[in-house]
Amino acid sequence: MDEKLTAILDQLNYPSDLRELPESKLPEVCEAVRRFIINQVAIHPGHLGSSLGVVELTVALHYVYYTPEDRLVWDVGHQAYAHKVLTGRKEQFSTLRMKDGLRGFPFPEESEYDTFSAGHASNSISAALGMAVANKIDGSDRKVVAIIGDASISGGLAFEGLNNASSQPNDLLIILNDNRMAISENVGALNHYLTKITTSERYNLLRYRAYQTLRRHNMISDRVRRSFLRFANALKSLFSHRQNIFEGLDIRYFGPVDGHDVVKLVHVLRKIKDLKGPKMLHVCTIKGKGFRPAEDEATIWHAPGKFNPETGERILEDTTGMPPQYQDVFGETLVELAEKDQRIMGITPAMPLGCSMNFMMDRFPERSFDVGIAEEHAVTFSGGLAKEGKIPFCNIYSSFMQRAMDQVIHDVALMNLHVVFCLDRAGLVGADGPTHHGAFDLAFFRVIPNMVVCSPINEHWLRRLMCTAAQHEGPMMIRYPRGRGVLVDWQCPLEPVQVGKGYCVRPGKGTTAVLSLGPIGNEVAKALSLVDEDLGVAHYDMVFCKPLDTDLLSDIFANYKRVITVEDGCINGGFGSAVLEEANLQNYQGKIIRLGIPDEFVEQGSCSELYQLCGIDAKSIAESIMSNL
Amino acid sequence: MDEKLTAILDQLNYPSDLRELPESKLPEVCEAVRRFIINQVAIHPGHLGSSLGVVELTVALHYVYYTPEDRLVWDVGHQAYAHKVLTGRKEQFSTLRMKDGLRGFPFPEESEYDTFSAGHASNSISAALGMAVANKIDGSDRKVVAIIGDASISGGLAFEGLNNASSQPNDLLIILNDNRMAISENVGALNHYLTKITTSERYNLLRYRAYQTLRRHNMISDRVRRSFLRFANALKSLFSHRQNIFEGLDIRYFGPVDGHDVVKLVHVLRKIKDLKGPKMLHVCTIKGKGFRPAEDEATIWHAPGKFNPETGERILEDTTGMPPQYQDVFGETLVELAEKDQRIMGITPAMPLGCSMNFMMDRFPERSFDVGIAEEHAVTFSGGLAKEGKIPFCNIYSSFMQRAMDQVIHDVALMNLHVVFCLDRAGLVGADGPTHHGAFDLAFFRVIPNMVVCSPINEHWLRRLMCTAAQHEGPMMIRYPRGRGVLVDWQCPLEPVQVGKGYCVRPGKGTTAVLSLGPIGNEVAKALSLVDEDLGVAHYDMVFCKPLDTDLLSDIFANYKRVITVEDGCINGGFGSAVLEEANLQNYQGKIIRLGIPDEFVEQGSCSELYQLCGIDAKSIAESIMSNL
Repeated sequence: MDEKLTAILDQLNYPSDLRELPESKLPEVCEAVRRFIINQVAIHPGHLGSSLGVVELTVALHYVYYTPEDRLVWDVGHQAYAHKVLTGRKEQFSTLRMKDGLRGFPFPEESEYDTFSAGHASNSISAALGMAVANKIDGSDRKVVAIIGDASISGGLAFEGLNNASSQPNDLLIILNDNRMAISENVGALNHYLTKITTSERYNLLRYRAYQTLRRHNMISDRVRRSFLRFANALKSLFSHRQNIFEGLDIRYFGPVDGHDVVKLVHVLRKIKDLKGPKMLHVCTIKGKGFRPAEDEATIWHAPGKFNPETGERILEDTTGMPPQYQDVFGETLVELAEKDQRIMGITPAMPLGCSMNFMMDRFPERSFDVGIAEEHAVTFSGGLAKEGKIPFCNIYSSFMQRAMDQVIHDVALMNLHVVFCLDRAGLVGADGPTHHGAFDLAFFRVIPNMVVCSPINEHWLRRLMCTAAQHEGPMMIRYPRGRGVLVDWQCPLEPVQVGKGYCVRPGKGTTAVLSLGPIGNEVAKALSLVDEDLGVAHYDMVFCKPLDTDLLSDIFANYKRVITVEDGCINGGFGSAVLEEANLQNYQGKIIRLGIPDEFVEQGSCSELYQLCGIDAKSIAESIMSNL
Repeated sequence: MDEKLTAILDQLNYPSDLRELPESKLPEVCEAVRRFIINQVAIHPGHLGSSLGVVELTVALHYVYYTPEDRLVWDVGHQAYAHKVLTGRKEQFSTLRMKDGLRGFPFPEESEYDTFSAGHASNSISAALGMAVANKIDGSDRKVVAIIGDASISGGLAFEGLNNASSQPNDLLIILNDNRMAISENVGALNHYLTKITTSERYNLLRYRAYQTLRRHNMISDRVRRSFLRFANALKSLFSHRQNIFEGLDIRYFGPVDGHDVVKLVHVLRKIKDLKGPKMLHVCTIKGKGFRPAEDEATIWHAPGKFNPETGERILEDTTGMPPQYQDVFGETLVELAEKDQRIMGITPAMPLGCSMNFMMDRFPERSFDVGIAEEHAVTFSGGLAKEGKIPFCNIYSSFMQRAMDQVIHDVALMNLHVVFCLDRAGLVGADGPTHHGAFDLAFFRVIPNMVVCSPINEHWLRRLMCTAAQHEGPMMIRYPRGRGVLVDWQCPLEPVQVGKGYCVRPGKGTTAVLSLGPIGNEVAKALSLVDEDLGVAHYDMVFCKPLDTDLLSDIFANYKRVITVEDGCINGGFGSAVLEEANLQNYQGKIIRLGIPDEFVEQGSCSELYQLCGIDAKSIAESIMSNL
């Protein structure tokens, strides 16, 4: 980074520093921030493309709004690196996404400039609306701005937020960061909208005052019906030849604006800042802006790993001889299954690369569906497919599956439909942190009637369980973690296993039996190599959390006076609790120790650090074995 | 019902009978069906208004489409009585919503004409799309129709479905049943749209063929990006002066049509039936159509209870001297709390009357929010309010709360925000059946870090817990059932209790202690009156499922060799399992018996029938006590 840019950045620690600069300096600030992000992310891997796209927008927002007094609500924190750089966290960038380091997403605990949790998409409008309404009620002049991307706005939650934005008096500004729409030559559209602002301000004020008067005099008689009417009104206004969906939803619309012209952005924001009522500003940006390789290949440079910031050459890990990623085993195996059975389909909500559904999409495009950020739809759509005899494999990250629990219950399990839920990123996920850990899936899924719940200890078992799920005529959930498996030679024959059957990994001599579910069983195996072999500690891989292998448990209870359960999931309500319930039914009199994720939100860090933190790494498991002898 | 109408209905058992009639007979069929529904619902209470509104639409659909080969997917079964009458279930109407009787909603197990579970709103488009896509892949000519109301379409899931409807080749028809929009005088709009049909058919075919050709030749290169682009495209098309949101979403739009002109409906449906591609027909209906009182007061006649079908006089139960409904205690108490603390807000997604939020809306309109059918938004919006220092009481029926689990975790609990979740209709709800039982809330909520989870045994405790929740600075969930409490004199002083403290209801003598959570504790009290007093069975109301009163449990474990837990929630993972976990930690060596809702979807029936079915009525509890002595 050249000295001039470094010098600029050195002077900027907080937005108040930024606001002391003349407008004419802002393009240089943007350049400095952009360079800083590129250089940092090159060595401390994170999300590059989205953050580069909103550098000018971020600078303009902090320049025009009085943060942190005014509230910026970022939708999905991928966008928020420039925001972090400008709000006192420049020096911490070297700790990005590391244990005790800077988080990858905004989070209120980290900074007063971070207003809301931003790990899951589509929540910004609702959260910001809550803030805007609260401020309005307090008579505060504080401004609230939600910044949402064009992918996130397709989520149902975002739509529900939009649909409610005009329901109460509030001055919310929603910024639609559209990084897939180039500014058209016809800049007239922008001018057209902007020249309307003065009139609109007047109109907005009038409308707002009329509303307030009515309210004050208690003349809004049919209030209950209003919220129901809102959407219908929006539709009607559209039918009747209004031109804009947001206007239909009673949200004033401005734009589109060039999101890389920081001075223009400042002018536009200043003009609409004090307008009353909810409004939307449509900003067009380019993902990866200012870094040629990232502009050219947005998908790869979304989160590129390490790279050379000068040449743009990515520094790829040599994975020769490594076991495959679980997601790739899923992807390859699904294709194999689909080749044998044409009823098999693949469904993912916006994670085709993340869960390797792209293998299926390449091979059977007509039988695979990326439904966008829409977890609820992904599940109900799968239910519809299953109702007509298809066998959908619906792949959703564990923590995002929390979005669709009702659909799993009401639209699949209740009808006992043959849908296979594959939960990637189950358990602790590492650097993405508390919003992304898949801690609750076992506790949630195992209490749903008709549901089979299981997890493979390795790649072979993942293949077997997928094969089993293809044949089991009812809903089945398979969970597996982020990252690599343990077998280099992973392509075993595709054979089903018996539902609800566990097995003995290592027989023992009657003192302690360790029962594990899923890949954490490999930590158990390592733990057993750390404890004295003469102790005769047994290891069972239960494979199924539901139905539990009650016969196997009966044997174990009869022969061992201590049972330790280990799972990469929340310790309350999960696999260990299921074992406890069965032990109680069987009147087991021995001791049961449950290991898993404790009842707290676990921070970010490497997976091995987090396993250790939760006491489910090999060493901690060994210690639990020894201390409970 | 006059003889002529009776005679018509007698001849109609299945849609095939209907399809043998000439078009000219259809208005009489509608009249007969309508009369039948009014007469039946007058004595067998159910949902009246919605079903009366779609009589013509239902008749027209079964007349034009070859059901059950063609698929009708009803969104929220309130609409589906005429559908049930016409599909072989006329004779069963006297068992409506009773145990082993006709269900209040469509459900595939009941009839092959019922294609999908329809208890929770907004799922029809996604489910029907799944079916339509499956049929398209199979090359089947089967038609699929989703019928969705203008309230249901505001749910995020419905929007996600709409947003995906044009993403794969399919011929889905979505019927928007708009019962809040009167047909305008300008019937030109209808004609305008209908005259466009021929052209549109040609256009649709061309577009579809072009798409298929591209796909066949593998020329759709950037498939992964398509789904992300879809919504953005819809917005763009709107910006660029297209006129219709559905058209923007690539769904052909037809309408609006008068939903009470059955012959016209038949003609319209015939015209668009064979059009390729996804399409929407906008039908305008009147809730309660054909029954004057219901037309005049839609809200009251949504589900009116018994009434005189001739005069329209409602037969109201005399509730003098009865304890209040829990929902009313909630409503009144919220107002009391809100009077003392202006930070308190009320939020409900479309259930202001059902949960008595209307009390708050009347008293503090500016501090209460009905957000429409939008559970996810309700929770995240509450999070935003809480972030700015408000204390939102967010009331959602337990089974609908399943829609917002991720928002509870990500947008509230993770930030430890002060949001109070009040879950009405928790536990078994009776006649609404399996889609509406609130079975899973304890198991789901108690595993979420930072969350306090509790349930009051009676009205006094509901008031105390609400008062406690108003002061407890973190997320808290209070669950209580549908229906009436047990105290006529319910207005106790508003005093907080200590979080995590249970108490002894009836001391015992060391054999058996019964631990209950919530109003089911009253069944326990009755049970104890049925067993020999000399047995000295103790009863504890634990009040809090989380945090558990570990001190009290420690006492109980020290003094009783048998513990029976009783809850009106799923037996796995819930309150009993929490007690089991604590007993295990405390090395309790006695026996624990857990009573609750078994691991199956419980049917409809009266609450007392269902308690009995699940073994949690007084008699069953007494038997459990005796059989475990």
